[in-house]
Amino acid sequence: MATITIVGAGMMGSALSYPASANGHAVRLCGTHLDGAVIDACRKNHRHPRFDVDLPAGVAFFKHDEIDAAVHNADMVICGVNSFGVDWFFEHVLKILPENTTVLSVTKGLHAYEDGRLVSFPEYWGERLGGKQLDICAIGGPCISFELGHKQNTIVTYCGKSAKALEYAKGLMQTDYYHIRTTHDVLALETAVALKNAYTLGVAFTVGIWENENPSGGKMRYNPQAAMFYQGTKEMRRLMIYLSGDCAHIDTAAGDMYVTVFGGRTRLLGTLLGKGVTLDEAMKSLKGETLESVAIITRVAEALVKLEKRGELSCADYPMMMYMYEVLSSRRFKPIPWDSFVQ
Amino acid sequence: MATITIVGAGMMGSALSYPASANGHAVRLCGTHLDGAVIDACRKNHRHPRFDVDLPAGVAFFKHDEIDAAVHNADMVICGVNSFGVDWFFEHVLKILPENTTVLSVTKGLHAYEDGRLVSFPEYWGERLGGKQLDICAIGGPCISFELGHKQNTIVTYCGKSAKALEYAKGLMQTDYYHIRTTHDVLALETAVALKNAYTLGVAFTVGIWENENPSGGKMRYNPQAAMFYQGTKEMRRLMIYLSGDCAHIDTAAGDMYVTVFGGRTRLLGTLLGKGVTLDEAMKSLKGETLESVAIITRVAEALVKLEKRGELSCADYPMMMYMYEVLSSRRFKPIPWDSFVQ
Repeated sequence: MATITIVGAGMMGSALSYPASANGHAVRLCGTHLDGAVIDACRKNHRHPRFDVDLPAGVAFFKHDEIDAAVHNADMVICGVNSFGVDWFFEHVLKILPENTTVLSVTKGLHAYEDGRLVSFPEYWGERLGGKQLDICAIGGPCISFELGHKQNTIVTYCGKSAKALEYAKGLMQTDYYHIRTTHDVLALETAVALKNAYTLGVAFTVGIWENENPSGGKMRYNPQAAMFYQGTKEMRRLMIYLSGDCAHIDTAAGDMYVTVFGGRTRLLGTLLGKGVTLDEAMKSLKGETLESVAIITRVAEALVKLEKRGELSCADYPMMMYMYEVLSSRRFKPIPWDSFVQ
Repeated sequence: MATITIVGAGMMGSALSYPASANGHAVRLCGTHLDGAVIDACRKNHRHPRFDVDLPAGVAFFKHDEIDAAVHNADMVICGVNSFGVDWFFEHVLKILPENTTVLSVTKGLHAYEDGRLVSFPEYWGERLGGKQLDICAIGGPCISFELGHKQNTIVTYCGKSAKALEYAKGLMQTDYYHIRTTHDVLALETAVALKNAYTLGVAFTVGIWENENPSGGKMRYNPQAAMFYQGTKEMRRLMIYLSGDCAHIDTAAGDMYVTVFGGRTRLLGTLLGKGVTLDEAMKSLKGETLESVAIITRVAEALVKLEKRGELSCADYPMMMYMYEVLSSRRFKPIPWDSFVQ
């Protein structure tokens, strides 16, 4: 039996304790400096405060100042921090792990260099690690965290450069309900993971428009949602091809966007904006929530502008991304530029 | 102003009278031999019996025995029959149209030749027409018919070999809410149109499974739906690449599957099957409804088997399609072969 340490006690990190425990491995869940109250609650009730079922028996809990003990002799370390924590994870975890440890990241996002170059977090960490060798894999694909506690069938994809590490991670984690594919195309898969949060915001705009036009409810309309879903898929496919030369993982991106639309913070923020609530008001009512969609739209749109200046691509091929960036920059909703989507 | 004749008074054919009328064109809606009662109702109330708003003012109604008058001097003829009516449309409409008429088909499906070769309906008709020249275009993309009556923003794609005919059709039909792209890749787009009905059935299976396991309701689960959505997108992409060498229209397929999941006959049939209702019972309760999903799954799966025998492709690359065919053939639900989806 192996020892698996999960760092970051948000919903997704914590939920991975279900498949991680299913094969009898020892699982340690270690909070970051933001997770103190969560770890306290887990220790008290053996349940994550946002889940409706207990965590698996045997999961041990650690606070951020116990990180050394949490990762000591771990066979695999799962990174469950959010995209704002990637440097923290590098400094406090990757730096102290022994050479050749397998790392499995579920953090969503892309890193943008000053010149606009976009890389996945595993690649970013790899570049920062210099000579130190860690086998960094990552998880993509549609998966609502708390449904893992209910053993709902789920297909995810693990990506990584090392076939051996991928098979090792898959072997540790797969269960009869958590089905794992593998791929070496890290950048394409991580693009899918990051961008589905961005484009879901635009799909949700149309839900907000509908709510605004139908204050007393009525029959929901789906053509505008589907049009945005189509356009989002198109732009994700284009960016995948630009970044990795291939778009096979558009399947994952579409499946992941599908599941993201049904709920959560991105849907809520997009709906509020579409209704006409300003970004500042919306963020107030989402206080304390990590808004990955805002982070990734800002980061990618600003990178696209730089890449266009360098002659790498044309922002006109990403009108939905640029439009969402405009909405966020002006801090209030603007009409959807439908005509730019059919060019 | 042009004259646009729509043949087939089902929901989609009839709904196209909204954008067709928006630019001031004369619109004629002609039923098939199955649409007698619909045309009677339209004449009486100026409303399609399944719509909740009137048809546009000025739409003229014709019965199937008035087809000659309905298409006389029409500038464009829209084919709104279902996939079981493509030969009827060929015999009764395409054969009598003057040379060079523009035809715009909204019929969903693919034609399978005896040897397994799959072609789009426009291509099938073209082959049957021999030397006669008609500019046959077709419509793809997400669009719930009755939402057109509510002017909901929608992005569709028109496909056809003739750039002139495409631009003509687009010019006649586009409005400020009905946004039209064009493509020459007829087979890829029509594959998207046809297959989204097939794969939506599989997504809906998981809704039925959930309903069966939660007879008194509760929180809907989305991971299994998303896993099937992912797998469906993957197989659509593969078949598109096999048939047309390109998968750019996977965007349309994904957007179209997204909107199809939210309601209609395919969702209902899939949910019933997933709940354990036999196909025969399910078809009884859907009496009188056209089940495009059953038709397309049967046709495509049987073609795949023939194509595999000829060494053209491997059925193992289409496990969800083959599984759905097995469910329909055995006339009752079988467990989802999740493991075959991660190979």
